Amino acid sequence: MAKLNLGLIGCGFMGRAHTNAHKRVADFFPDLECRPVLQAVCDVKEEAARRFAAQWGYASIETDWRRLLDRSDIDAVDICVPNLYHKEIAIAAAERGKIVLCEKPLARNSAEGEEMVAAVEKAGVPNMVWYNYRRIPAVSLAKALIDEGKLGRQIYHYRANFLQDWTISPDVPQGGDGTWRLDVQAAGSGVTGDLLAHCIDTAIWLNGSVNDVCAMTETFVKERKHAVSGAVQPVGIDDACAFFCHFANGSLGLFESTRYARGHKALYTLEINGTDASIRWDLHDLHRLEYFDHRDEGRLRGWRSIHVTDHGGAHPYMDRWWVPGLQIGYEHSFVHQMADFLKCYQSGQACSPNFREALETQRICDAVLESARKRGWQDVPR
Amino acid sequence: MAKLNLGLIGCGFMGRAHTNAHKRVADFFPDLECRPVLQAVCDVKEEAARRFAAQWGYASIETDWRRLLDRSDIDAVDICVPNLYHKEIAIAAAERGKIVLCEKPLARNSAEGEEMVAAVEKAGVPNMVWYNYRRIPAVSLAKALIDEGKLGRQIYHYRANFLQDWTISPDVPQGGDGTWRLDVQAAGSGVTGDLLAHCIDTAIWLNGSVNDVCAMTETFVKERKHAVSGAVQPVGIDDACAFFCHFANGSLGLFESTRYARGHKALYTLEINGTDASIRWDLHDLHRLEYFDHRDEGRLRGWRSIHVTDHGGAHPYMDRWWVPGLQIGYEHSFVHQMADFLKCYQSGQACSPNFREALETQRICDAVLESARKRGWQDVPR
Amino acid sequence: MAKLNLGLIGCGFMGRAHTNAHKRVADFFPDLECRPVLQAVCDVKEEAARRFAAQWGYASIETDWRRLLDRSDIDAVDICVPNLYHKEIAIAAAERGKIVLCEKPLARNSAEGEEMVAAVEKAGVPNMVWYNYRRIPAVSLAKALIDEGKLGRQIYHYRANFLQDWTISPDVPQGGDGTWRLDVQAAGSGVTGDLLAHCIDTAIWLNGSVNDVCAMTETFVKERKHAVSGAVQPVGIDDACAFFCHFANGSLGLFESTRYARGHKALYTLEINGTDASIRWDLHDLHRLEYFDHRDEGRLRGWRSIHVTDHGGAHPYMDRWWVPGLQIGYEHSFVHQMADFLKCYQSGQACSPNFREALETQRICDAVLESARKRGWQDVPR
Amino acid sequence: MAKLNLGLIGCGFMGRAHTNAHKRVADFFPDLECRPVLQAVCDVKEEAARRFAAQWGYASIETDWRRLLDRSDIDAVDICVPNLYHKEIAIAAAERGKIVLCEKPLARNSAEGEEMVAAVEKAGVPNMVWYNYRRIPAVSLAKALIDEGKLGRQIYHYRANFLQDWTISPDVPQGGDGTWRLDVQAAGSGVTGDLLAHCIDTAIWLNGSVNDVCAMTETFVKERKHAVSGAVQPVGIDDACAFFCHFANGSLGLFESTRYARGHKALYTLEINGTDASIRWDLHDLHRLEYFDHRDEGRLRGWRSIHVTDHGGAHPYMDRWWVPGLQIGYEHSFVHQMADFLKCYQSGQACSPNFREALETQRICDAVLESARKRGWQDVPR
Repeated sequence: MAKLNLGLIGCGFMGRAHTNAHKRVADFFPDLECRPVLQAVCDVKEEAARRFAAQWGYASIETDWRRLLDRSDIDAVDICVPNLYHKEIAIAAAERGKIVLCEKPLARNSAEGEEMVAAVEKAGVPNMVWYNYRRIPAVSLAKALIDEGKLGRQIYHYRANFLQDWTISPDVPQGGDGTWRLDVQAAGSGVTGDLLAHCIDTAIWLNGSVNDVCAMTETFVKERKHAVSGAVQPVGIDDACAFFCHFANGSLGLFESTRYARGHKALYTLEINGTDASIRWDLHDLHRLEYFDHRDEGRLRGWRSIHVTDHGGAHPYMDRWWVPGLQIGYEHSFVHQMADFLKCYQSGQACSPNFREALETQRICDAVLESARKRGWQDVPR
Repeated sequence: MAKLNLGLIGCGFMGRAHTNAHKRVADFFPDLECRPVLQAVCDVKEEAARRFAAQWGYASIETDWRRLLDRSDIDAVDICVPNLYHKEIAIAAAERGKIVLCEKPLARNSAEGEEMVAAVEKAGVPNMVWYNYRRIPAVSLAKALIDEGKLGRQIYHYRANFLQDWTISPDVPQGGDGTWRLDVQAAGSGVTGDLLAHCIDTAIWLNGSVNDVCAMTETFVKERKHAVSGAVQPVGIDDACAFFCHFANGSLGLFESTRYARGHKALYTLEINGTDASIRWDLHDLHRLEYFDHRDEGRLRGWRSIHVTDHGGAHPYMDRWWVPGLQIGYEHSFVHQMADFLKCYQSGQACSPNFREALETQRICDAVLESARKRGWQDVPR
Repeated sequence: MAKLNLGLIGCGFMGRAHTNAHKRVADFFPDLECRPVLQAVCDVKEEAARRFAAQWGYASIETDWRRLLDRSDIDAVDICVPNLYHKEIAIAAAERGKIVLCEKPLARNSAEGEEMVAAVEKAGVPNMVWYNYRRIPAVSLAKALIDEGKLGRQIYHYRANFLQDWTISPDVPQGGDGTWRLDVQAAGSGVTGDLLAHCIDTAIWLNGSVNDVCAMTETFVKERKHAVSGAVQPVGIDDACAFFCHFANGSLGLFESTRYARGHKALYTLEINGTDASIRWDLHDLHRLEYFDHRDEGRLRGWRSIHVTDHGGAHPYMDRWWVPGLQIGYEHSFVHQMADFLKCYQSGQACSPNFREALETQRICDAVLESARKRGWQDVPR
Repeated sequence: MAKLNLGLIGCGFMGRAHTNAHKRVADFFPDLECRPVLQAVCDVKEEAARRFAAQWGYASIETDWRRLLDRSDIDAVDICVPNLYHKEIAIAAAERGKIVLCEKPLARNSAEGEEMVAAVEKAGVPNMVWYNYRRIPAVSLAKALIDEGKLGRQIYHYRANFLQDWTISPDVPQGGDGTWRLDVQAAGSGVTGDLLAHCIDTAIWLNGSVNDVCAMTETFVKERKHAVSGAVQPVGIDDACAFFCHFANGSLGLFESTRYARGHKALYTLEINGTDASIRWDLHDLHRLEYFDHRDEGRLRGWRSIHVTDHGGAHPYMDRWWVPGLQIGYEHSFVHQMADFLKCYQSGQACSPNFREALETQRICDAVLESARKRGWQDVPR
């Protein structure tokens, strides 16, 4: 089996989730011709890198990502650092001919994203953004149903939200490890880039492109201490964001995200309504798909709760795991995405979503934020 | 419209529920040829009878049920007193040629029940027992599906339970208003006659007769104060009962009831599994039916949650109520049962379950209690 | 017991629901000093009025509402005709000194509503609008919790939707019985006045007034046959509407309604998130309230599904019904509202929502529609 | 870090699940002093062993388990073959001083189990049985709550079932790969040893020992073709089994398992009711625990759905995984069990359930089967 030497940049939560995917993918997809190798992990904090390497089995460490990129034993880099650094690293990696895998969102904004797309396309390097929720079997099944036209001749509505509650306390700092997502410099935006980006990526994958948006944002806590400097500073991110939109297929979209919805940890839900059928999904019970089919016999119509754990080809990816009825978890979506990437890589195809596709999400995010700023509708540039 | 002059005996919870049915049935079933008239209510406590009559609009009161039965302006009696009195009243009513409606269970035991059946059959009077849960639309729909063979060529399992938690405190007395169900003299048995009787009535209606049973009972609180006498006395009822059984159709039954299941108020659930499909129902959300059909396309199989509120004939009884999506409640089952009774009465047919049919439930209850006593299997006599 | 002679105008779905409330209220609220009497029902179709009177027990009929209003034996009128006629009837009734009960929405728009408010206030007649969902016990419980401050020092989010699917077919006509809600002349607007009005009424009751709104509407089916004339005409109503808003208390609102959400019949859901606790409710299971309390012990935090069926004062209105665990239905909300009206009437107090309070909902609806027309934010006039 | 050289016997579903645990445990429990090494895999089919070793990274293969046991580079054996072989392998392994990990059930019956316990205790080797469901975080949380007395002074009820539907077709063979569980020679029993053993292990862990049982079993399909020989043979296993029992703590138990419950794939549910609180859990949504606490404020009592995904010590094991709201899956229970085993091993303690503890489950299974045979109660020997 061929090897793909990986260099991971960033030892946080996403560094762990990606590493796990790299380590497991060959176990569960033994038919792949190529297997990732944990060649090096890079973090500015040497001790963190060292500990991470020891725990996960990376062969070496770096503390400067430029040095990592310069190494000839690295085929691919996996970018798991705050959004602030995505652009610079990705472009440098592309220029050195490395495969570039980048945690979502692609960048802090579409201007940065444009440069990144240009760089990887110029370099001709394989590239992918980790919008992992596409690869949850229930969501992949939804995609298959929609593509087959199961929902009927017309789609009327698409709605999604991503609700959390972890920043309600004004004592949560901004900046620093674990809380850089509250620092507009590091993150680019708040819930829009962090959470709605997920909702949007899935939405355009399932329901096509968006023409225009109209948004409202709010920052409930106006000032927070900075985790590093200790200074109390204005909060620059959006704590909450809601928007509606028109999809190109004529359906209406409605999206909401917040980190102030007490009781919800990671409640990403989506629903799509067509002429004949509707679909719902919810990250809190990610192994289930809700499905309603109006073509069912009238008195027996009801929302079906499909336990997406069947193997034998019925449910995407599930023939790789256990037996019917036994659920998988969050991290499996990354394993699936890495398997798909490797499959595409072997055959020379782009693996979706690549940088260009992820740029579309970025443009919608930009339009959302601009719409909120100017308090009116905003077209999404194409 | 013809009138059916009713005499109600007993002003408790069931007296209210039945009276409500009598008052509403003509509103929602205007096609009936006959309408109940609240002619008299009878209670040993004159003040209670008077208050009840004033509230509900009964034309007169009695304090002695014999006097009520002797009145020529009474066509039908509705027995809503503790089980202890069912037999005597029902037989006397039959002897006077009255229609007899009797709250469940038919009697304290099948010996009493036999006499009652003999009396109404000898007198040739219409008779019915208020096993109202059959007339919840979701349960009626289940019946229709089963009768059409939707579940497949063979039934494997039937399970039901009825869980409550209102007698956990040892301070709940036995005997008296509201708590006579804990007094074995008044009730005949505990959860078996009170709650399992409901489960069994539905079960034999949906799944046919029972051959034999094997049961376990328990009385957790051994002594309770008597509400009337104040004396602390041994508790003679079963606080909890579980049994399994063989149905005549070859399926296995499993039943459980208790009043010590903390967190459940009236959790009557049933499930039936056939070769091709399964059905579940739950009184706590009585307007829903869960349905699984193995003939659905493989990847789209799931339990359907059917909101049994469609009109237009699809869902039993629901064309009489509101519009799709709007649920009905507990008391509607009594309205439906009274409507069915009046329909049968007009056409000279027996309305199910009549006394003879309810006697089958009584025999199973007796077998259950006997099985528990002797710690072994017990045949159900036919 | 005193009598309140009622004249009902309109024999449709709402005429039935209100009549049921009038007939049942004294049964379940026997402590009221005053009891409604079904004095007359009025419908332009004499046969319909006659049939309705016979079914429900109205003492007389009228075919011209003006004649009804002129009758001295009528104390109160209950307006259950299409929105188009609300204003004229209500004003005429007020001028004749009648109590005016009016089905929601108050009017087709706030201009009409202003005139109605002026008329009832000038006449000094008791008045009420049937926003019945306030009186569902679970919703009333939510109100009590919010008013006690259970949700914490700040509210962040309020969201509600009302999803239906009954107009997806282009063959559904506009105008006429049962489908007048699709005729902009008769209804004033589409889902905004019909469904969002419910959501808004509950929202301002629970969460206070709204400062400004930003909305999107859509008409999916552009032309429909008129049920009466048979002519194919442009559809003037909104088939779907979404809006966000700022509440005066600083929280964000998000609302959506449609009649094109396949699989939903009457899915009215609401959720409110505060610093310490959150509440959710859903009309499809109206007897349940979901509640999350962050003050619960950390490892035991979870959304509680409260079966709002306890009596003994714990759950609003439920001491009037059955026993814990036994659910009530949709129509009970009207019974509760009528009981509350009669209680207020006896004591000379206004019963909420009266016309003035319902006008606030109308103003928000107007602002929503205007916002959608002009594609931008719209202040709600006070 | 020290190494524990593992030899796996059996390449089926369980071989995969255990191997995954061995490979992941050090990644997620880096604080362990000892790490499993995949030294050898053994299967009678050489090709299967070779393929498995290549896929998962075993260093070597064997086709005779005796040769594996004779190897000095093997510290521990992990038995994942049909129940038929558990005894012989485990005893031989113990005699050679190997650590013995054995897939559940311990054996085909308690006689075999007794010999196994004697062997490991005589040899003094660490031993463990893979009753993995104890280590699902929601179940571990239940254990903690029960041990702290959260359920109140008395437990009244324990109920559990394990429902599947994969053997309904008479075309499913007995014997052979994947279907040996239908062959009484290979399995020892049907659902009792396969599925109820899980329910019983959890039950005695959570609720203590069982005094006596009364059971019913059924074999719906009387004859099946043998997968290897092709001969149609009588079916010797129990297709379904239900039993009730008395726990030593005075509570009642009710258990059911079947492979004929259409619509259920692996529906293992459990519920326990105490004086003050109740707990429910369901393998189909294994990351949730349902909890009801009667000590909650009356009007706010409800079943809480706890999403058992919090880190920071609140939820067992979850600080090793992702962030709150992100669920784990089935296989994680094996990782946790292996981590616990290694922790115990390091400190010289027995890891629960060891062979002796698993023997108690075996004795209950034997009593259940004997009770069904003789149609009466059966004491559980101690």
